[in-house]
Amino acid sequence: MRTIKLTIQFDGTLYHGWQTQSRDRTVQTTIRDSLARMFNKTVVLHGSGRTDAGVHALGQVAHFKIDSGMSLSSLQRGLNSLLPGDIVITAAEEADADFNARFSAVSRVYWYCIWNAPTPSPFFTRYAWHLNKPLDLAAMKQAAMSLVGEHDFSSFHFRARDEANPMREIKKISLRLMRKSLVLVEIEAGSFLRNMVRIIVGTLVQVGRGRLTPDSIEDILNRRDRRCAGPTAPAHGLFLKKVKY
Amino acid sequence: MRTIKLTIQFDGTLYHGWQTQSRDRTVQTTIRDSLARMFNKTVVLHGSGRTDAGVHALGQVAHFKIDSGMSLSSLQRGLNSLLPGDIVITAAEEADADFNARFSAVSRVYWYCIWNAPTPSPFFTRYAWHLNKPLDLAAMKQAAMSLVGEHDFSSFHFRARDEANPMREIKKISLRLMRKSLVLVEIEAGSFLRNMVRIIVGTLVQVGRGRLTPDSIEDILNRRDRRCAGPTAPAHGLFLKKVKY
Repeated sequence: MRTIKLTIQFDGTLYHGWQTQSRDRTVQTTIRDSLARMFNKTVVLHGSGRTDAGVHALGQVAHFKIDSGMSLSSLQRGLNSLLPGDIVITAAEEADADFNARFSAVSRVYWYCIWNAPTPSPFFTRYAWHLNKPLDLAAMKQAAMSLVGEHDFSSFHFRARDEANPMREIKKISLRLMRKSLVLVEIEAGSFLRNMVRIIVGTLVQVGRGRLTPDSIEDILNRRDRRCAGPTAPAHGLFLKKVKY
Repeated sequence: MRTIKLTIQFDGTLYHGWQTQSRDRTVQTTIRDSLARMFNKTVVLHGSGRTDAGVHALGQVAHFKIDSGMSLSSLQRGLNSLLPGDIVITAAEEADADFNARFSAVSRVYWYCIWNAPTPSPFFTRYAWHLNKPLDLAAMKQAAMSLVGEHDFSSFHFRARDEANPMREIKKISLRLMRKSLVLVEIEAGSFLRNMVRIIVGTLVQVGRGRLTPDSIEDILNRRDRRCAGPTAPAHGLFLKKVKY
């Protein structure tokens, strides 16, 4: 039995997120069905974690077990020819038998794109949150610093039902302005709570607009109350950039 | 009567090109209909030139005449709110009464994007021609040099019916490799023949693949025969970058 590790890019616009659900079209189901067609048997595919509907990926990772002698390059080529154009396998590798896309991961890196210009861009409508008023990037960077490290992120957590531990450690946050109008927020953590990146970005944007001060972040963390943080930034600006092992 | 100059970006994926045709959905028709709705009267919109179905624009220019006191910023904002997300007016300016988007133009700049990597990118399927074998960029640059200047471009011309003068002057061609996999071809000329940019790119790609030598370009020009040049590159990699006045 071989363990195969896949690295996956996808444009999430037309998908109800990564995870297989009852009836909706998801990325996991689409890849799993292509694997089943290729190997002519059921394949169980495990991703590094869920992504919300509309979120994209530059480096999602998944693994599956298979009893087949097919070469990795044939597997990758075959899979890409079966998959629709908005999902691409960028690497297929042999992994150790105990490799697990989710539990072996040591950290996840997300990118969030903001198109910050008076007029929108037709080329970023699917990939960035359009904000037409100028953002104070220096204030946003200062606010971001308060989030780095280990904290109780209850204020930055969409809690559908009771979940275990709200403690998470943010290893890094950076904000960069690219090509005049594109603000790129990069956040790395071991793992994230549900909607955590999008609520962080929504809150940093409130700072960038002057509606919150940079030093209010510490207070928002301490309150452990979702209502204290900013709105949830829209899904279409979010990219799972990389999963580290 | 005012003359208004519009600068327009559009994602051409869902349009049958710029120019209004009998029944197809075009960019010109879409903007003209929004102008008519905004001013509650028929507006005649003149573009700098046609673009083929599927071609995009970062800086198409058009003009129209209007008898209205509406401010330029209201006009731009109003138009953008009526237009679909894949067409954006990036500037609205007052122009001289004799300004003509087509006839006042002194040159047009086109960009052609090639995604040159073993695997495609889900984010460039709509915006770049995917070629999986490595291209010889040095050979392509050398070949491009032979096209600069004034030539009879009959070999690089899709002739639907007899057209006038096949002489055109290419002011500049450059090829750049961006972010490892994206080859950007930039071509500037006073005006272009039909399909000229796409046939030039298709021919340069034949050079990049080693199927034509760089010095064969001169011979192809001299033959004045479309069959001597390479294939027409697909429309979706082409962008009208800028119109100069």
